[in-house]
Amino acid sequence: MDIAYILNTFFTLFAFVLIILMVPGFAMLEAGLVRTKNVTAVLTTNTMIYLVASMMFLLVGYHIAFGAFGSESMSAWALFLFQMAFVGKTVNIMSGGVSERTRIIPLIFFTVAMAGVIYPIAVNLTWGSNFLSGTMFDISNLKDLAGSTVIHSTGGWALLAAILVIGPRKGRYKNGKVRVIPASNIPLVVLGGFLLWIGWFGFNGGSVGSIATKKDVEVVALTIMNTNTAGLAGGLIVMILSYIYYKKFDITMILNGALGGLVAITAGADVMNIYAPIIVGLIGGALVFYAVPFFDKLKIDDPVGALSVHLINGIWGTLAVAIFGTASFMTQLKGIVVIGILAFSLSYITIFIINKISPFRADEEEEIEGLDSVECGIEAYPEFRKSF
Amino acid sequence: MDIAYILNTFFTLFAFVLIILMVPGFAMLEAGLVRTKNVTAVLTTNTMIYLVASMMFLLVGYHIAFGAFGSESMSAWALFLFQMAFVGKTVNIMSGGVSERTRIIPLIFFTVAMAGVIYPIAVNLTWGSNFLSGTMFDISNLKDLAGSTVIHSTGGWALLAAILVIGPRKGRYKNGKVRVIPASNIPLVVLGGFLLWIGWFGFNGGSVGSIATKKDVEVVALTIMNTNTAGLAGGLIVMILSYIYYKKFDITMILNGALGGLVAITAGADVMNIYAPIIVGLIGGALVFYAVPFFDKLKIDDPVGALSVHLINGIWGTLAVAIFGTASFMTQLKGIVVIGILAFSLSYITIFIINKISPFRADEEEEIEGLDSVECGIEAYPEFRKSF
Amino acid sequence: MDIAYILNTFFTLFAFVLIILMVPGFAMLEAGLVRTKNVTAVLTTNTMIYLVASMMFLLVGYHIAFGAFGSESMSAWALFLFQMAFVGKTVNIMSGGVSERTRIIPLIFFTVAMAGVIYPIAVNLTWGSNFLSGTMFDISNLKDLAGSTVIHSTGGWALLAAILVIGPRKGRYKNGKVRVIPASNIPLVVLGGFLLWIGWFGFNGGSVGSIATKKDVEVVALTIMNTNTAGLAGGLIVMILSYIYYKKFDITMILNGALGGLVAITAGADVMNIYAPIIVGLIGGALVFYAVPFFDKLKIDDPVGALSVHLINGIWGTLAVAIFGTASFMTQLKGIVVIGILAFSLSYITIFIINKISPFRADEEEEIEGLDSVECGIEAYPEFRKSF
Repeated sequence: MDIAYILNTFFTLFAFVLIILMVPGFAMLEAGLVRTKNVTAVLTTNTMIYLVASMMFLLVGYHIAFGAFGSESMSAWALFLFQMAFVGKTVNIMSGGVSERTRIIPLIFFTVAMAGVIYPIAVNLTWGSNFLSGTMFDISNLKDLAGSTVIHSTGGWALLAAILVIGPRKGRYKNGKVRVIPASNIPLVVLGGFLLWIGWFGFNGGSVGSIATKKDVEVVALTIMNTNTAGLAGGLIVMILSYIYYKKFDITMILNGALGGLVAITAGADVMNIYAPIIVGLIGGALVFYAVPFFDKLKIDDPVGALSVHLINGIWGTLAVAIFGTASFMTQLKGIVVIGILAFSLSYITIFIINKISPFRADEEEEIEGLDSVECGIEAYPEFRKSF
Repeated sequence: MDIAYILNTFFTLFAFVLIILMVPGFAMLEAGLVRTKNVTAVLTTNTMIYLVASMMFLLVGYHIAFGAFGSESMSAWALFLFQMAFVGKTVNIMSGGVSERTRIIPLIFFTVAMAGVIYPIAVNLTWGSNFLSGTMFDISNLKDLAGSTVIHSTGGWALLAAILVIGPRKGRYKNGKVRVIPASNIPLVVLGGFLLWIGWFGFNGGSVGSIATKKDVEVVALTIMNTNTAGLAGGLIVMILSYIYYKKFDITMILNGALGGLVAITAGADVMNIYAPIIVGLIGGALVFYAVPFFDKLKIDDPVGALSVHLINGIWGTLAVAIFGTASFMTQLKGIVVIGILAFSLSYITIFIINKISPFRADEEEEIEGLDSVECGIEAYPEFRKSF
Repeated sequence: MDIAYILNTFFTLFAFVLIILMVPGFAMLEAGLVRTKNVTAVLTTNTMIYLVASMMFLLVGYHIAFGAFGSESMSAWALFLFQMAFVGKTVNIMSGGVSERTRIIPLIFFTVAMAGVIYPIAVNLTWGSNFLSGTMFDISNLKDLAGSTVIHSTGGWALLAAILVIGPRKGRYKNGKVRVIPASNIPLVVLGGFLLWIGWFGFNGGSVGSIATKKDVEVVALTIMNTNTAGLAGGLIVMILSYIYYKKFDITMILNGALGGLVAITAGADVMNIYAPIIVGLIGGALVFYAVPFFDKLKIDDPVGALSVHLINGIWGTLAVAIFGTASFMTQLKGIVVIGILAFSLSYITIFIINKISPFRADEEEEIEGLDSVECGIEAYPEFRKSF
């Protein structure tokens, strides 16, 4: 029916726009979290990712994931835009976690591979045409509404592979101690965090795929409500833990806790009652709070906490659907494992090869001087005198 | 009918998202207006308010205001989200006005009380189930579309109570003079101001409650247009007054003038013709321009001008409906007085009690050093050398 | 039909809100691109433009462009808001290009003229009631979806006129060399760039004018997709050119390239297939890359690159419809020429007259000290020590 088609198209365009707010959202969050000498490089990387990943998805990736353009229930172009809005996120997760030491050129190559091939394969197996249908690797019945596994874990596994190849920032781990490297601009962190949060309403709400019946629109509203609730709970628990442990409120951790809750609810926001997301989010936030120092103990240096937020909570969120929703635990676990093996191994191989051709790691002097001057030739704040 | 239900749900979700833009909006505005040494504390407070107030409203406040979840005309979850988006604003108004000297822990307690009880009572009496129905305190026929009184005055009265308890910033009033304390980051002020403005379209437009008939959608469009017009007029008059008095354009005052116009139109944007909001906004902006120094004369120290914007214009806007709309002056006045007594007295008592248990006021040395280090342990801009 | 009316009104309000995101978008972009001593003045100018231009359009301009308020297919107020959201952009383009040396008072006068008369005449001839209908200057069959010519070129011609009257910044061109004046805040540039990009979805998508049939909503989705694709291509080509020429990634140029692609697709996004915008955008971005140094060679000093983005690509985009769409080349050329003569001559005369009464150019000492102190009395970042 035409009205259904119009409503679904309009709603999907609305959701698309919300997700695009995550482009400046990620950019501001990461620009705020790194040191001033690397801010322009981080912003340039984020912009590059949107440009390269979206174009690759238009030309190649979408077709690997879904086949030809088209949809029965809405405009094919609205559906394309919505799916395209997702793709850069997997690279954002990876690039954020290796920032302050990584060159842009190899990241461009990786973006081409991730948006053109790796992520589209993950989508193909789950939401897409599924070329492994009927084999033992068939994971098409994985319940993953908007990508706890398909997007967040995929990006997280890619990041883990990248950190293993690239290594920690100079001076981060010294004599068995972790040197704290403070975020350079807290207002940007908060702005970015909330732009991401708002984008999530589009991410999860739009993934329901239809508002054309009373039942559908009910699920959309429930999904957005549950998404928000899990974010609240994730932030709240970190606020409390942060005060208990340090007698201070650590705003960057609180926001990461909220983001952890949001990642965790992404797989099953549409199939839970309105109180379950409180527990999903509380656990999600707590996982972030404890995972961040844990990764540092392993000398896995992730300046923005992306592994804790996206990988750990991508896994938790996918399992949570089996607990609070209707999915089978084994189905969820199988999905996590198959995508995990796929995303980690393809990313590792890709990063390893790129690294031979065009090394990811900046030279030591360049890292000390900061990537802005060597990669971009532009300081982020040239007129402000620096304290160090 | 299903289409009506779908359209109302979708539109309410759209309005909800716009209002959530006010969360970073308030955060950026206030972070820009305070000194750098208090920026992280202000951002943390704003984030805390969204987390705590929204969760309290889910668990307690909504039920006090409206009873059980549910709606005939749209998804209960969309309606909840829309109403939830309002609640933090009352605390934002209060916390902004006592910034640069107030601890976070007691603000958490106050947020719990405001979002869980005080604001829900104000809503109960006006838009909600009205437990004073039939008594002499029945104000359910107050005409207040989106909360000039219910939200903005309530927050304003709470702020006045808080300032009376907490007192002015150190050194603000000395030897009968007002020391000017300059805003630390003007781009953030402007960004925040416009995010709030955009959020207002959702606030007022969504409060119409239905787009399901031609007449309803006409009112929605008129409401958004009138909202914008009053904001324009409020900003314009302050631009002119600022130039007349000082031969300079004071952008922070201009934006506060626009916000004053927006508060003033919030009660009656749906029932005025398209030119009346010009007058409502001009008066609203002028009130801000003259009220800010007036409060300083009374040594009521409000770093962001929240009393002038929200309390004064909440009152003016509620009365303006009687002049330019269809409401009775006495009904409006009664609503202002009842909510005023209720909000001020409940807030004062709450703040007074909290203050005994966990003092709002930071120690003198902490205030001089800045709240960021003592409350958060995180500087907002650690790498930029400060001038003082 | 009522449903069509409701859907069109809702979608137009949605598009309006997206365009209003361009108000902080332009403000952040320009505030980031100028030196800190001129940031408050730029922000104040941007705010002033929204206030003055919108109010003038309500009171005068809309009526010159379209006659009385009203629409058959949607709420008259939604249509007004959508059209009103466009008007300030023409002045933003002009004011951005003369920033760092221009006073606010004469800009107010120019805003009154542009929003009240000049732009409304351009609209009248193209999208509006067309008072030259049937004459040899009839350009009403110009194909210009959302204003490559009507908005972007009009603003660009006004800027060219202004630069000819006002001249370059002190010290910009010395001994035959161009002195590079670095942008002061790169995160704001990126934030502003993406807010503009997002606003463009409303700009172009909303200009289709209807979502009420399956065919209409299909065109809307295609338009938004094509808009995005051209932006991607414009950014990508500058990314590549920037690396080829300088071995660096210049983020401010990359974003200007994307904006160039967005301007170029604005005339014909609704009538092209999904691959044509790649070429439109690639050429658009390349034009920006080569035009920026070209204007500097002519000593036309445009601190934000607005001529290259808006004027050059306004022309290119209007011609591109003849190549990739269905318009006649001569019709497009005639539209470009008529609007060009009109916009340049009316703007030049207006600016010339204003300049006699209230000079645009700040005094030399004021320009060296920065416009913030003399025009606004407010520093943008008073606490950060400056390097120079």
